[in-house]
Amino acid sequence: MELTLEGLRDTARGAAVLGTGGGGDPYIGRLLVEQELKAGHRVEIIGVDELPDEALVLPSAMMGAPTVFVEKLPSGEGGRAALTALERRLGRRASATMPIECGGINSMMPLLLGAQLGLPIVDADGMGRAFPELQMETFNVYGVPGTPMSIAGDHGDTAIIETDDNVRMEWLARGLTIRMGGAAYICDYPMDAATVRRTAIPGTLSLCRTIGRALREARERHEDPFAALTATLADTIYTYGAVLFRGKVVDVERRTIEGFARGQVTLEGFDGGGTLVITFQNEHLVARLDGQVRAIVPDLICTLDSETAEPVTTESLRYGQRITVYTISTPPIMRSPAALAVFGPSAFGLTDPYVPVETLG
Amino acid sequence: MELTLEGLRDTARGAAVLGTGGGGDPYIGRLLVEQELKAGHRVEIIGVDELPDEALVLPSAMMGAPTVFVEKLPSGEGGRAALTALERRLGRRASATMPIECGGINSMMPLLLGAQLGLPIVDADGMGRAFPELQMETFNVYGVPGTPMSIAGDHGDTAIIETDDNVRMEWLARGLTIRMGGAAYICDYPMDAATVRRTAIPGTLSLCRTIGRALREARERHEDPFAALTATLADTIYTYGAVLFRGKVVDVERRTIEGFARGQVTLEGFDGGGTLVITFQNEHLVARLDGQVRAIVPDLICTLDSETAEPVTTESLRYGQRITVYTISTPPIMRSPAALAVFGPSAFGLTDPYVPVETLG
Repeated sequence: MELTLEGLRDTARGAAVLGTGGGGDPYIGRLLVEQELKAGHRVEIIGVDELPDEALVLPSAMMGAPTVFVEKLPSGEGGRAALTALERRLGRRASATMPIECGGINSMMPLLLGAQLGLPIVDADGMGRAFPELQMETFNVYGVPGTPMSIAGDHGDTAIIETDDNVRMEWLARGLTIRMGGAAYICDYPMDAATVRRTAIPGTLSLCRTIGRALREARERHEDPFAALTATLADTIYTYGAVLFRGKVVDVERRTIEGFARGQVTLEGFDGGGTLVITFQNEHLVARLDGQVRAIVPDLICTLDSETAEPVTTESLRYGQRITVYTISTPPIMRSPAALAVFGPSAFGLTDPYVPVETLG
Repeated sequence: MELTLEGLRDTARGAAVLGTGGGGDPYIGRLLVEQELKAGHRVEIIGVDELPDEALVLPSAMMGAPTVFVEKLPSGEGGRAALTALERRLGRRASATMPIECGGINSMMPLLLGAQLGLPIVDADGMGRAFPELQMETFNVYGVPGTPMSIAGDHGDTAIIETDDNVRMEWLARGLTIRMGGAAYICDYPMDAATVRRTAIPGTLSLCRTIGRALREARERHEDPFAALTATLADTIYTYGAVLFRGKVVDVERRTIEGFARGQVTLEGFDGGGTLVITFQNEHLVARLDGQVRAIVPDLICTLDSETAEPVTTESLRYGQRITVYTISTPPIMRSPAALAVFGPSAFGLTDPYVPVETLG
């Protein structure tokens, strides 16, 4: 399916919702893809079933702290350099690319690469949202080696990392990302299409577009965008979505440290609604209302503008903003013990147990 | 020429002198090579003229802070993994390896690799001593690309780095070294034998052996080892060597920071000989006597035991040790403006100008 300008904008909006405050603002990535579309390049999104089993798929993404992405604009060259380096290592050409992360800017980077190289983009990803670390992937949960992986910086520098441990892959690639200026381009989890079908979350680019379109249409019709979001999610793998809290930002602590944006945002509720504190590592990890956990990873904690339901990323949160905190349940495939070990609370150093958000409402 | 046990021990002793306090203690590396020799493996050292022009030479070394090497013993596997990874990248087998750095433990690592793989070791290097950073090489001064380079950690993790800037190569490889635990194995500056002949400092493994033998023989004959060292150096590319200072260690500041051992040692002279302060970044950089520069990089500042003239590395310096500080002039090829730009005082952030040590005596 060929992506239209409107489809692109809807996809970026939905990806920002699934970015759960992190993932890098897709706005910048969207503008880069728009340039390609306006220059006459095609963005062809294909289903996971449209490739032969043995076709090589090279997932692509940016790596780094979202706080850096807004200071250092992404370039098309980095993505091409990363893909080319990995193709050379493998001695094969890629048949397609795909997101490893459909939330945030990494929904857009594979589209940019696909447009530039004439490669189709598989409609699937390995997170179904955004997570901060490379091992936090369904690919990893289901045994796909992350390496050989490639990484490219802004100066044309590249590296190929090889390790049999996807956590060490993250550790080593993060070190290079920091030294490449805090943002880099990667291709990891090289795999054939049969493996994509076995391990990826299917249809997540379409899901982003569906969410983004629902928000747009609600605004156009002057309907409540939050109600539209809840109605839309009910028909997706995410089934449950609900407003958790409405309030005003009263404090933001944010540091870019060891390659991540870490910190917390504090919101005061309207009409005595209590105090909500959201802790983040690139993405929102846990939301505590007056000290009680009300949502926790891998469930999604989204910060949306209270008027427009436009997603607000952690690097854009400012004192006084009126924010609606909206939570979304993750599908069962992301709540298995194996999955929670990789991207549940303990994977982020949190001691709180995982409790499904729909039971905390 | 096949290396004997005695030749190995002499080489290690001389390499410790040229390590100028850093470079990693060759003692550990020597023991590993001794194991190979005792197991019947050969270490064949060849002259730079013994290879055909097009033969591929892959220089090999350890990278990291010497303070880490003494806590984490070097392994043979890391060197093999690095060499194999670079061979695969280049699609060619190496005809030989060689030191990039003849001072310190990196005089020994290529011998270990050569013994294990049956590869000859070229009698030459790119520093003629030890320096802390990868761009501080005659190879770099004379235009040899440092990459593709390989780096391997203890867990079998490897990376291939590619960049057109040898300073960025150092920066990226240092980041990986830190994340690989502070010590790693590298092969860089892959080149053909014709390029080795054009850019390497020839005969430096032999020079280490000559220096080490002179010290041993002086001890065996109960002669002054410092006088023997001076007499021996007079016939080498290093021409000038002299005792700068005799005193006792009264203070050592040492931190392992950003992948380097940084700090300074303070010595009080005997008989009112003043206070000598030596600043180091892995290797000794500058010696100041009562505040006046008396020797500065790239000239060699060696800390030797006052009784035996055994080299003492910065990580072994202790309060109360009686140390003779011995300085050695570098050859003219290492004092050109191009060379000083790469490993002269300003390359280490020092504001003192370079002044040849023999004019400061």
